[in-house]
Amino acid sequence: MDAEVRRYIEAHFNEAVKDLERICNQPSVSAQGLGIAECADLVKRMLEETGISAHLLAAPGGPPAVFGEIRGASARTLLVYDHFDVQPPEPLELWQTPPFNLSVRDGCAYARGVSDDKGNLVARLHAIRAWLKVKGRLPCSLQYIVEGEEEIGSPHMGAFMGQHRSLFKADFCIWEGGGVNSQGRPQIILGCKGIVYLELEAKGTGHDAHSSYGAVVPNAAWRLAWALRTIKGPDERVRIRGFYDRVRRPTRVELAALRRLPDETEADLRGWGLKGFLKDVRGYTYRKRHLLEPSCSICGIEGGYTGKGTKTVIPAAARAKIDFRLVPDQRPEEVVEGLKAHLAEHGFGDIQVRDPGGHSPPARTPITSPWVKVVGETAKEVYSGPPEVSPTAAGSGPMAYFRQLGLDVIMGVGAGYPESRIHSPNENIRLDDFRRAVLHTAALLERVGRG
Amino acid sequence: MDAEVRRYIEAHFNEAVKDLERICNQPSVSAQGLGIAECADLVKRMLEETGISAHLLAAPGGPPAVFGEIRGASARTLLVYDHFDVQPPEPLELWQTPPFNLSVRDGCAYARGVSDDKGNLVARLHAIRAWLKVKGRLPCSLQYIVEGEEEIGSPHMGAFMGQHRSLFKADFCIWEGGGVNSQGRPQIILGCKGIVYLELEAKGTGHDAHSSYGAVVPNAAWRLAWALRTIKGPDERVRIRGFYDRVRRPTRVELAALRRLPDETEADLRGWGLKGFLKDVRGYTYRKRHLLEPSCSICGIEGGYTGKGTKTVIPAAARAKIDFRLVPDQRPEEVVEGLKAHLAEHGFGDIQVRDPGGHSPPARTPITSPWVKVVGETAKEVYSGPPEVSPTAAGSGPMAYFRQLGLDVIMGVGAGYPESRIHSPNENIRLDDFRRAVLHTAALLERVGRG
Repeated sequence: MDAEVRRYIEAHFNEAVKDLERICNQPSVSAQGLGIAECADLVKRMLEETGISAHLLAAPGGPPAVFGEIRGASARTLLVYDHFDVQPPEPLELWQTPPFNLSVRDGCAYARGVSDDKGNLVARLHAIRAWLKVKGRLPCSLQYIVEGEEEIGSPHMGAFMGQHRSLFKADFCIWEGGGVNSQGRPQIILGCKGIVYLELEAKGTGHDAHSSYGAVVPNAAWRLAWALRTIKGPDERVRIRGFYDRVRRPTRVELAALRRLPDETEADLRGWGLKGFLKDVRGYTYRKRHLLEPSCSICGIEGGYTGKGTKTVIPAAARAKIDFRLVPDQRPEEVVEGLKAHLAEHGFGDIQVRDPGGHSPPARTPITSPWVKVVGETAKEVYSGPPEVSPTAAGSGPMAYFRQLGLDVIMGVGAGYPESRIHSPNENIRLDDFRRAVLHTAALLERVGRG
Repeated sequence: MDAEVRRYIEAHFNEAVKDLERICNQPSVSAQGLGIAECADLVKRMLEETGISAHLLAAPGGPPAVFGEIRGASARTLLVYDHFDVQPPEPLELWQTPPFNLSVRDGCAYARGVSDDKGNLVARLHAIRAWLKVKGRLPCSLQYIVEGEEEIGSPHMGAFMGQHRSLFKADFCIWEGGGVNSQGRPQIILGCKGIVYLELEAKGTGHDAHSSYGAVVPNAAWRLAWALRTIKGPDERVRIRGFYDRVRRPTRVELAALRRLPDETEADLRGWGLKGFLKDVRGYTYRKRHLLEPSCSICGIEGGYTGKGTKTVIPAAARAKIDFRLVPDQRPEEVVEGLKAHLAEHGFGDIQVRDPGGHSPPARTPITSPWVKVVGETAKEVYSGPPEVSPTAAGSGPMAYFRQLGLDVIMGVGAGYPESRIHSPNENIRLDDFRRAVLHTAALLERVGRG
């Protein structure tokens, strides 16, 4: 990488930390509708201060996202996706310092969102700033999209991309997060699972009934339990007809990449307080099942009396929240329709299925993409170990809408590490990782420009 | 009935209403531990004022119950069971007048517990008082037991009766409640279902997991739903081995009595907001299933995220409260043991089964008991229509402990009516029914004494 640019980054690192503080101290909790508009304005300002032309755009009914653009020396264009919203900070009492007041101690910066995803956003902006300050222009062109609903499942991103598709003209896309694994090797992750989140509601009597009527009146909680059992049984296989039909077989290259990933079985089991995983998977089979197979989880269930002691009541209603995690090429709409048809076929057509917040399709970029090589090689300029390449993350995100532009989308070039505690109290990044993320981005910009 | 006693009752009816106010204005909510000791003292005082020798007795760890005794002209002895505790009054905003402040309007008396069961207690005391005032002694001997935990399932009554069994020397027992049906006919009910109330808990990961791990970590809510499905399926049949083995076949006399009961199918369906009952039972088949068959209800279920919107989490724990309503000769302990064995056999031995509050066995007095005739004939002195005789109630109570004394136990001789709204806001009795309950008790005392 250009030595002047590297020197500028090292010399002005404190400015990056200051910007990190500025954005982390602005609450932006999408689930609670807290500070979203304010944070969108701040992001727009920060892009503009960096030298990027920025606009607030929205889909009908959605909050603003920030779209930025800047021409560089080359017409080759990097698209960056980040989000400025964060998870709710609760439970507050577990934070050592307030979640919306960045605290630097022992080489780490603590704040809600500092890893997911504000740290990456600021690191990338400071790499851009360094090039502009030192050279007056970027080595390549750049587009930036920063949304404010990622933490609630990006419910408007499909419509947003439908509406603003023509704005996006890029060669590939750097996605949201990234960082290092427990051995300090940079991670490159090439996909997201899709997600469908649904609420099921069973109804019985018009109001809660005395349970002495248990032999004669329908019980909503029983109906819900029975309906759920038809969706998935102890064999862990989803029974909706055709659910697995579109599951794409992993390529040999993907499986080979999966084999090379480090074995986290024991550490993960300890983390979850488990003696074994479902189906007794371990090592490679654990990674394969975790990353490449779809799942169906009950996220919450409730009905009737759940307080202390006894109350003899037949619940008038019972509800479950469930999610399906999808892998390419499963389609969210087909899963929703398939579930409804399944319930009707199994005698549970009375159970209402509600979609509380949109869903996103799965997405995966081929490991053979030339851009994977580009990101990996530029990582070597900053990190000591070779990059760890994973075919996909287990988590979900709106990556598919960008894949639909024909772009290779690569997650990496970020400031996270295994102890970042994203979504949890005391979320943090190490400042050394943050510096490396700035440097890696700067190296990537140079390399993209070079072609 | 003795004309003087009848006249005394009519002339001093206002005193009975005043005592009703006195005891209803004393809160005594067992579920909330509110006013139980105070109300036990008040009941003891009221028994003593009536002329009954009264004592506070308790089982180890239990609250006081009031035991009363009085010798009459005959050695033949009537035992009366009542309870002084009441259901929680909540939701308070639905009461037209405060629940613990008796309000008389339009010929009705409103208060929490005025029907269940304080009105019956006071009616019975005033019948005794009338005999003592007019004749100086009762026609028969009498024992009285008034407990303070009926509304929470009488958790100490088994131990209480084990300890104080030798005190009870009676010929038969009048049980708790009673009243008239929608046609004004007095009701005689000869049994209670038993009840077992249990909490099931499934555990998965040590703490809630992100649902992106849905393919590899166990989900407590799934395990609970699957386990529940093994206990009872949509055929409504309990699958615990041997569960139905001890179910006594109803006698021809019981079935004949059931046939004679009025058809409440349409009214009950309307009340529950239903188009049909389970198994499409109606009329006789509805009554038969409702009264004579055991049931298993989920009373409550919970696990994971149940708030608004979406949270993608795998619950670390999930809980269900379930009850079994039992019929003679099912045994609560066998059901508990059977359930535990069932779960283990079906691969759910990890699910914890907890008993939060004791259970009570089913009980039924033969319709052919001579005392049924006695209660029915004395009812005719007070009510216009013939009594309606039901083999059992669908509800539960500690009746079995009294049946175990070898006593015929009969529910009837009470002040309730179908709109009494027991357990609900604006619980009430009609003063005319209250008067008739005093008269019926007085007639019964005379008849028991006559032999």
